[in-house]
Amino acid sequence: MDISRHLNWLSACDAARAIRDGQVSVVDFAEACLARIREAEPTVQAWAFIDPEHVLAQARALDDYRKAGNPTGPLHGVPVGIKDIIDTGDMPTEDGTVLHAGRTPAADATVVARLRAAGALIIGKTVTTELATYAPGKTRNPHNPDHTPGGSSSGSAAAVACGMVPLALGTQTNGSVLRPAAYCGTYGFKPTFGLVSRHGVLRQSATLDQVGVFARTIEDVALICEQIAGHDAQDPATGVPRARIPFTDVVLREPPMPPRFAFVKTPMWDQAEADTREAFGELVTHLADRVEEFTLPESALVALDWHRTIMEAEMASSYAAEYERGRDKLSESLRGQLERGRRITAFDYQAALARVRPMVEGLHQIFDRYDAILTPSAAGTASRGLESTGNPAFCTLWTLAGMPALNLPIMKGDNGLPLGAQLVGPRGDDARLLRTARWLTRATNSEAPSAGST
Amino acid sequence: MDISRHLNWLSACDAARAIRDGQVSVVDFAEACLARIREAEPTVQAWAFIDPEHVLAQARALDDYRKAGNPTGPLHGVPVGIKDIIDTGDMPTEDGTVLHAGRTPAADATVVARLRAAGALIIGKTVTTELATYAPGKTRNPHNPDHTPGGSSSGSAAAVACGMVPLALGTQTNGSVLRPAAYCGTYGFKPTFGLVSRHGVLRQSATLDQVGVFARTIEDVALICEQIAGHDAQDPATGVPRARIPFTDVVLREPPMPPRFAFVKTPMWDQAEADTREAFGELVTHLADRVEEFTLPESALVALDWHRTIMEAEMASSYAAEYERGRDKLSESLRGQLERGRRITAFDYQAALARVRPMVEGLHQIFDRYDAILTPSAAGTASRGLESTGNPAFCTLWTLAGMPALNLPIMKGDNGLPLGAQLVGPRGDDARLLRTARWLTRATNSEAPSAGST
Repeated sequence: MDISRHLNWLSACDAARAIRDGQVSVVDFAEACLARIREAEPTVQAWAFIDPEHVLAQARALDDYRKAGNPTGPLHGVPVGIKDIIDTGDMPTEDGTVLHAGRTPAADATVVARLRAAGALIIGKTVTTELATYAPGKTRNPHNPDHTPGGSSSGSAAAVACGMVPLALGTQTNGSVLRPAAYCGTYGFKPTFGLVSRHGVLRQSATLDQVGVFARTIEDVALICEQIAGHDAQDPATGVPRARIPFTDVVLREPPMPPRFAFVKTPMWDQAEADTREAFGELVTHLADRVEEFTLPESALVALDWHRTIMEAEMASSYAAEYERGRDKLSESLRGQLERGRRITAFDYQAALARVRPMVEGLHQIFDRYDAILTPSAAGTASRGLESTGNPAFCTLWTLAGMPALNLPIMKGDNGLPLGAQLVGPRGDDARLLRTARWLTRATNSEAPSAGST
Repeated sequence: MDISRHLNWLSACDAARAIRDGQVSVVDFAEACLARIREAEPTVQAWAFIDPEHVLAQARALDDYRKAGNPTGPLHGVPVGIKDIIDTGDMPTEDGTVLHAGRTPAADATVVARLRAAGALIIGKTVTTELATYAPGKTRNPHNPDHTPGGSSSGSAAAVACGMVPLALGTQTNGSVLRPAAYCGTYGFKPTFGLVSRHGVLRQSATLDQVGVFARTIEDVALICEQIAGHDAQDPATGVPRARIPFTDVVLREPPMPPRFAFVKTPMWDQAEADTREAFGELVTHLADRVEEFTLPESALVALDWHRTIMEAEMASSYAAEYERGRDKLSESLRGQLERGRRITAFDYQAALARVRPMVEGLHQIFDRYDAILTPSAAGTASRGLESTGNPAFCTLWTLAGMPALNLPIMKGDNGLPLGAQLVGPRGDDARLLRTARWLTRATNSEAPSAGST
């Protein structure tokens, strides 16, 4: 591999290795990313904040640190984009709303602190939709700027997809990692609920918010997850301290047997577009005896109501201050959601919460027979127009269940835009799900479609 | 001590020792308790279920077990009464409502299983108010049957107070351990929220429900707490596994310095009756430089609203099946509460929940200067009449805060009935609170007033 050209397209694993071996400096790598950003940003608009001088100052410090003979972390010098609802102590965090303009957190979110501890270069803040909900930010789909990038982690998905950074952080409360990953054609992974701390991340819904990652290879997903996963006393959802999960070791292993997939159309299948149906038809044919169709009961549709009840009730509380002080500066759709949320009774809210655990237990039975669920990440490819970030319905069930879910950018629609396949695993089995995904990617012989690769 | 007479009045510590040493058999001790129950039960009516043959069969088995040379637990042969909302696998658990008549759980609650593992003799089920709320059960105050025993753990408090059993379990969601302990003149201890598992206990309010204990000495409180405290994966509120708390060792130690008390009248002080004011005046004078008055802000009153919001919202969910299937069999007051609970919005409910942690942090500042809060357990002595179990307002704040709270039966009202002092400590410091209470009890030179002691 000629790593002197197009350094920015290196995977995080390759970049980290090249930096560790002294083949490439952090400054060289950062400059390649900044060059790509200068080139593509006018069209893609993935960044809410980026300061090239601050990036290069950090890069020089990381180079000096390494050259002084200090031990380097697994992400030493690797640039990571951070969704602009995740606090950074050295950059603004404005949450995609004018109400938070100029907000400068005093400290890093736990995930950001962990990335820095692993040597990562926190390069800038990526565009989010308004308060991580539905009203779009400025980002465009890097495959075709007339199309939505998806949301709410729009900038992170677009920036990774078009080679601006190898890694980025996003969050998902409904479909905000998987959908933009599918639309932009990257890997997008939302780990098991509670695996990654949300301390320092804008709270939309304590029950549903989950941190996720974007990368262009599965090995890179594993690399970053290994660094950010783990207990944090500041986020009770992370449970108790546990041993580090060896994501990278697990993902590189061959499965002891070829995995088996449950193709789950979900009761939302009638929303799937023609090329989604066609692409999945081909994928299932290709996987032959490794896949079986598994039908969820129609009653699974009601889980979308539980999700909406929980999300809107919790959003109304989380964003009470924004609503009370600046509702005229909120989008009409968010205002409507918050007003609906305020009318939900505690009775309905608790009833919805109480349904989650039995639902998870029911869904987990699928994994008695299958290694993973195979299902669309979205109804189709990114739609034309920037008014909507698309429909999260194909993600809702798995987000509510807190199960790990990965978008695989292994297909394309008739319009040439990426079409995502979603793999879902049992809670707590994140590393094995990535290993299964790697098997699937190799079995389908696909590479992530790159946007604007030269 | 002549332990052959009135065995039933032995403390749990003394009884356990006498049984361990072979001075008294479990059967002898159980028979003494049963005799006292036969004598006093027609008046006191503390029991929802008790089967003397089953008691004696268990007692014989415990004797045989010991005589066979097996190692015995710290509660070997000690009878414990169990509030009739706590599941027992060998007896009915009817929750104080005809709607659950004939209910026979398949398994013991975790607390009951822990007691049995420690060798305790589970003697019977004590009367609870309707679903552990306000509508009274049949129990009467053992000091004067025309007066209420308090509730909701009415039978447990009365049974311990009048020498039917040395120990009993209760629960508190508002004032259901402290108040009946105060009215009946026993120690009643509600440990820190999360210290004792609620698995297998009727759920009224997941946020507020807490298991507590009744005993006639502080050492006995420590003895039983040491056995029932601890992590239980079935109740997430119990957190993570921790080392056993050496309650008995701690409680027997002298405090390194005489403790300091914050006398907190609370903003409910205007509800305190004349003899409460007078008794506390004397107590404060007696404690001299060990006590200072500490004034909570008037705003602390609003915590009672948060408590009611949380309790009624969660009760409406917890008792939804009872309301939907049998509301005509519920008391009018409970029906009204459940209907109010159904109208609470998720917004108000979450707002109330969000206030708890800052409130606890604020209250904990008191313990920077004081070892414990000294405050009334109830407005006064048990009122005449059985229609009401009394006012829980003096317990509400500490229950909401999840702080450990102990009733000390160290005073009497003008009518000769017991008047309780409440000691409250910081969360997690349960054993030290008991040690402080022991110091206070000795400093005031009091003994628990016994009801019907001969």
